[in-house]
Amino acid sequence: MSAEKEQKKKLIEPRTLKGFRDFLPEAMIPREKLIARIVDVYRSYGFCPIDTPVLEYLEILMGKGSDETDKQLYRFEDSGGREVGMRFDLTVPFARFSAQHLSEIGTPFKRYHLAKVWRGENTQAGRYREFMQCDFDTIGTTSVNSDIETALVINDILERVDPRSDATFTKFQIHLNSRKILSGALDKLGLADKSTPVLRALDKLAKIGVDAVVAEMAQPAGATDGQAREILEVASSQGATDEILARLEKNLEGNDLGLQGVADLRAILEATQAAGVPAERFAIDVSIARGLDYYTGAIFESFLTDYPKLGSVCSGGRYDNLAELYTKQTLPGVGASLGLDRLFAGLEELGMIEKTSSTVDVFIPLFDASLSSKYFEIAAGLRRQGIGVELYPEPKKLGAQLKYADKKGIRLAIVVGSDEIIRGVANLKDLRSGGQEEVKLDALAGSILKTLASDPTPKKDV
Amino acid sequence: MSAEKEQKKKLIEPRTLKGFRDFLPEAMIPREKLIARIVDVYRSYGFCPIDTPVLEYLEILMGKGSDETDKQLYRFEDSGGREVGMRFDLTVPFARFSAQHLSEIGTPFKRYHLAKVWRGENTQAGRYREFMQCDFDTIGTTSVNSDIETALVINDILERVDPRSDATFTKFQIHLNSRKILSGALDKLGLADKSTPVLRALDKLAKIGVDAVVAEMAQPAGATDGQAREILEVASSQGATDEILARLEKNLEGNDLGLQGVADLRAILEATQAAGVPAERFAIDVSIARGLDYYTGAIFESFLTDYPKLGSVCSGGRYDNLAELYTKQTLPGVGASLGLDRLFAGLEELGMIEKTSSTVDVFIPLFDASLSSKYFEIAAGLRRQGIGVELYPEPKKLGAQLKYADKKGIRLAIVVGSDEIIRGVANLKDLRSGGQEEVKLDALAGSILKTLASDPTPKKDV
Repeated sequence: MSAEKEQKKKLIEPRTLKGFRDFLPEAMIPREKLIARIVDVYRSYGFCPIDTPVLEYLEILMGKGSDETDKQLYRFEDSGGREVGMRFDLTVPFARFSAQHLSEIGTPFKRYHLAKVWRGENTQAGRYREFMQCDFDTIGTTSVNSDIETALVINDILERVDPRSDATFTKFQIHLNSRKILSGALDKLGLADKSTPVLRALDKLAKIGVDAVVAEMAQPAGATDGQAREILEVASSQGATDEILARLEKNLEGNDLGLQGVADLRAILEATQAAGVPAERFAIDVSIARGLDYYTGAIFESFLTDYPKLGSVCSGGRYDNLAELYTKQTLPGVGASLGLDRLFAGLEELGMIEKTSSTVDVFIPLFDASLSSKYFEIAAGLRRQGIGVELYPEPKKLGAQLKYADKKGIRLAIVVGSDEIIRGVANLKDLRSGGQEEVKLDALAGSILKTLASDPTPKKDV
Repeated sequence: MSAEKEQKKKLIEPRTLKGFRDFLPEAMIPREKLIARIVDVYRSYGFCPIDTPVLEYLEILMGKGSDETDKQLYRFEDSGGREVGMRFDLTVPFARFSAQHLSEIGTPFKRYHLAKVWRGENTQAGRYREFMQCDFDTIGTTSVNSDIETALVINDILERVDPRSDATFTKFQIHLNSRKILSGALDKLGLADKSTPVLRALDKLAKIGVDAVVAEMAQPAGATDGQAREILEVASSQGATDEILARLEKNLEGNDLGLQGVADLRAILEATQAAGVPAERFAIDVSIARGLDYYTGAIFESFLTDYPKLGSVCSGGRYDNLAELYTKQTLPGVGASLGLDRLFAGLEELGMIEKTSSTVDVFIPLFDASLSSKYFEIAAGLRRQGIGVELYPEPKKLGAQLKYADKKGIRLAIVVGSDEIIRGVANLKDLRSGGQEEVKLDALAGSILKTLASDPTPKKDV
């Protein structure tokens, strides 16, 4: 007993760090499905994969985000005495990458990058310290065509976001803006040099209301009451997309920058509709700014209709210069980032994530241990026809083996004894319906594909 | 000029840490293809994905590999004062994971995990400090059926390792052993308690030759000359698989453990052949031990026939207890790890990696900027039929746009002007052959798929 206790004492407690997670199969299987679909969309537009190191020289990472990201950085001195840090986003490494490899990659350059990033966030807010980002960007062009494409990619990804089916998901909306519109409005009012405090005040609209925003625009920013109200009128344009754009054109009359912003939005709406995206998929929201300094043109945010409180699940926009800290070459671009963990949390909350712990549809129990080579043969034949098969390794009772398969969510089982082998048949059991049929071994793949196609949705968790 | 110089001075040099790499599209595209195929194979056997954090408590990582891995560990104190480290392999995190989640995952449990690991290796040896491992394991069973499955998975992955085609790759061999055979032989000779120094001497056979090994087995290990030569006879069995196994059965007569090892190898050979794997795919090599202490049963190594010097690209074996440091529950298992970076280096050396910087087969130049919405419409239609399309964003000269596409390795271009729109047609150009045909817009997808199917191999790098 005391020896056992001593043994117990010596065990290391298996645990993960605060803010870090293990992913079990039931979480990873739908995640991988989602990731594969996201990558499919990126690739279908010609975006190419890149990868960069998790560790970067600290000087590459420091001062590139905000004071907060600096504070949250996982940083240390490596054994060679270098100051290093773990990346906190995929934009800074991409900027470094672009500057370093510009002559090899050429422009325009379209990349996607799906990878983990790390931030020492306050975990009390339900935040994770390790999470995944899915970024895509087009750099080296100022063309609105790349803005259009960004909107299309966001749309196509969100249309495929329901892991339960291949049907088009439609319960989301993409909010559109162009930073040129507000800049143009400020310009027109002679407030261009006061844009930062004015926009900072504007950003509080939802929280503090019109009058307080007007007051704040007057106080630190020096806007008159009339100017403030005009900005607010531009920023809070409501109504149908066409009406908003017409009104903005009137407001911005004579201001090239502002009118260019409106024209960009018109181009995005026209081309996405030509590509088959329903008009109501987009909403114009002139108030969204997504950080005051970085974005300079089109801005995108996107929301799940049934869970707006989740916040934007895929956001981005156009910027004037990606890599100014690392190269003198100006690299304008446009892109967006999908927060996989936030999106996944939203889908889970909406009941769209079904729990399965299996990657196959077919199970072969070890019904008769002496027939294992035969089972391997049957399984190999099915795999050659694209059907995944799991074999049970141990000669347990059939009921226990089938229970294992059912618990994992495997749909079909093939039960074969020596009698069936002699007769060249197998029992094909539907673990969901409880049905069973005898099938010739050489017709097995066909029967399986037919059964799966007859009701392709995975088993519901009850 | 001096202002420019000052600007130049302030730029941060874009660079990566020693031993760390950026992956450009031409490297990432074939890598992603390979990874997708590996995952396909894992899944087709019912292995499930898991993921674990990059950072672990230091106590989880320390002392689990060798002194060398301890020394190479990237470790630091996080801002909360915790001693943490970056994982150096996927086995230790899996052991921790299994102990922590055992009641949720149940057994048998089959997982795969593809992820990066970090080791502060000496980069002069051409080693990287950040590299990717692709592990798969079956735990909670001692059944030889899981050993068989491990061999099949290794075989199926390597059969699909040629990214240039979907044809079966055959130029590799899997070396098989069972640790039970040498243990049985030592047992039979009464040398069981001296197995470590004896096996350590044996490990040097290729380097120092028979006589020196016999001498070393005598000296520190205390084996007689006869015993040493008998061990060597068992270990260096040459010839056809059947002959080796028959000879081993004679050598090990009366020793249950050793005979069990031979029986395991027979079972693996029989079942893999039943599953369609050619017999010559396997070679018995009783001398391979892969670390003296960890593996206890079947052992696998695999080699590219045309590049044996590369070393084993996928190795593993059976072990008695995965997670003894973290749980009292015994978790026997079997698995293997594919070194993606080593494999990829080998394929590159063998000229099997073709350089492409594109993820699509079809390119639409912005031939007439006023028609961009039409181009987005055509592209969207093709994407709905599963055809990836890249649009050029800028209205450059057609020749420059097509050159961009050709350089990236895109096969086909669709050139459409206002005249073609009126007539409802497009010019489909084959950038490889230089051919061109006029195709009705509503027949475009069919023509593209036909052209691609007629010669599906990607363009050769000349």
